[in-house]
Amino acid sequence: MAAQTAVSEVDGANGRLIYRGGYLIEDLAPVANFEETAYLLWHGELPSRSELDALRHEMVSARRLEDAARATLAAMDPETDPMDTLRTVLSAQGATKTIAKPSAGEAVALTAAIPTIVAGAYRRRQKKDLIEPRDELGHAANLIWMMEGQEPARERVHWLDQYLVLLADHGLNASTFTARVIASTGSDLTSCVVGAIGALKGPSHGGATYAARTMLDSIGTVENAEPWLRDAHARHARFPGFGHRVYRTYDPRAKILRELAKTADPKRHQVAAHTEELALKILHDEHPERPNATNVDFWASVVLTGAGIPKELFTCIFATSRVAGWTAHVLESEEDLRIIRPASVWTGPAPGKKPLPVEQR
Amino acid sequence: MAAQTAVSEVDGANGRLIYRGGYLIEDLAPVANFEETAYLLWHGELPSRSELDALRHEMVSARRLEDAARATLAAMDPETDPMDTLRTVLSAQGATKTIAKPSAGEAVALTAAIPTIVAGAYRRRQKKDLIEPRDELGHAANLIWMMEGQEPARERVHWLDQYLVLLADHGLNASTFTARVIASTGSDLTSCVVGAIGALKGPSHGGATYAARTMLDSIGTVENAEPWLRDAHARHARFPGFGHRVYRTYDPRAKILRELAKTADPKRHQVAAHTEELALKILHDEHPERPNATNVDFWASVVLTGAGIPKELFTCIFATSRVAGWTAHVLESEEDLRIIRPASVWTGPAPGKKPLPVEQR
Repeated sequence: MAAQTAVSEVDGANGRLIYRGGYLIEDLAPVANFEETAYLLWHGELPSRSELDALRHEMVSARRLEDAARATLAAMDPETDPMDTLRTVLSAQGATKTIAKPSAGEAVALTAAIPTIVAGAYRRRQKKDLIEPRDELGHAANLIWMMEGQEPARERVHWLDQYLVLLADHGLNASTFTARVIASTGSDLTSCVVGAIGALKGPSHGGATYAARTMLDSIGTVENAEPWLRDAHARHARFPGFGHRVYRTYDPRAKILRELAKTADPKRHQVAAHTEELALKILHDEHPERPNATNVDFWASVVLTGAGIPKELFTCIFATSRVAGWTAHVLESEEDLRIIRPASVWTGPAPGKKPLPVEQR
Repeated sequence: MAAQTAVSEVDGANGRLIYRGGYLIEDLAPVANFEETAYLLWHGELPSRSELDALRHEMVSARRLEDAARATLAAMDPETDPMDTLRTVLSAQGATKTIAKPSAGEAVALTAAIPTIVAGAYRRRQKKDLIEPRDELGHAANLIWMMEGQEPARERVHWLDQYLVLLADHGLNASTFTARVIASTGSDLTSCVVGAIGALKGPSHGGATYAARTMLDSIGTVENAEPWLRDAHARHARFPGFGHRVYRTYDPRAKILRELAKTADPKRHQVAAHTEELALKILHDEHPERPNATNVDFWASVVLTGAGIPKELFTCIFATSRVAGWTAHVLESEEDLRIIRPASVWTGPAPGKKPLPVEQR
């Protein structure tokens, strides 16, 4: 047990994800958008109409990049991994002259700035000019706008927004835990979020959605699912998008995303559904004792694709969502700050070896 | 127990710090410089003469900043907290097009680049032009050279170098643990180090050396130590530089630094020694059951001052040293990578509360 939290709870045994206030994810997703979800995670209750309006206003005014961040974005090689660009430019965006305690206002500001950086990284990869945010668009719609320069269809915004709601928090996952360890030293919120971005980048964490999409691309057709999976299995390769450290049953977010995928990307849904069925069968046949459920990355990869998000941005879009949880956890931990400095077990030799000066080595 | 490690061991009960291979810090410091110490932490043994030459060559060629890092440094407001500049510019320096597994070569490169960034941040604060590194100078000497543009006296280099040796690793402290959590997701070494910098920035961690110096500045004279400490104690203020989460006796690094301080800054040593004696007495009188020993930050602040390091750079100089340990821990953890995703205790309400659409809230 590394922390107490009321931000979210992953009830792995029962396949339940509970957001702050006691909301099951399947109850919340149909009625809340990302902004409302972030407010819930930060403040403990869903916003009223006027609170939501105030939050939107605050977010809109924090979308534009600071001069240092803008120049840093321009300094990055356009082909840089977008997560590295996000890590660097957000670090510049949140840089300050003196250290400040994490605040709710900063949580809003960092959350609001991320889509501008992600879209900026994408436009630079495309060798296209950056597009300024549009104040009247919501968080998800504005992100697609800044990527494409065209107002996106309502359904695409809905799919992306649902993804952002579903991924916004998930207990003490590795990136959230990173943010809490950094916060525990009394450091600032930008340092916490920048560190969390670095953790999310890992293939075993945020990078898994990309891997799931890559697998589905490689499978390509319903007919190819069986030979592909059998071959991968024979080579002892893992199937991206299956298995989870906490869930012992179907991930409730994956269930919602699987349903959304039917309309978001019907063709890929078909291939994915067939792949899922076979993959679970192969995994179960080999290890019937293991709970080899589909995880959120598998179906997220289909929904994000349907929403028109290029796969090289998947991990950045994950960060766009999870920053709400990271910052909520840091704000919660501020209430009772103790440095996280775990014990280790020494596996080296007993002390007392005498070093020789370099001349005698 | 969060990890097994053979990189270093803090034996708090006996006041011993053991570096990789079984070297007690008090045995190592008199014969090894920072480059040798870093090699030891990375490779498990001290370098031979030819291995040390090869390492020096490798470090010298990695001192110069990449274009993106150089432009990012130029983009930062010169008055930015130097730790924020370091976090941002190192993130740019280590940015890549594709994710790579942490490697010893990268550990060397990041370690070598940090002084260039720290000195660059300092020069910009001073509104002075940057100074290019000088290949024939060692790590510590070159850092002072890039800050001042003059070759430093041999003793100043020695004091700084000794500090860098002593602080290079210290078990699973919060910044090292941050690096290991980030590494556990399969992320890259730059992400680990950037996250660790964010953790080190906290006043309860790397920021404490600055606080100790600020206290000594505020005390100023031997005569003022008692009234200052009594007053601070009456206000329930903590004494920076005293107490540690792990040591239950005198920190062995503080012992070495206390001795160095005598020559590095004799006048401040006098004030500090008197302050130490009184502070320990006041703390002991109130809580005789507590092990209120002097910690490393207290005497480090005097030695760094004697070495001519301005206090606004103290935490950056800490990072300049600890990066050896951070990267050694990450490389060690790569041998058996498991995601660090601790359990949490839910303190929120039971699930099942039904959310209302915003119109009805």
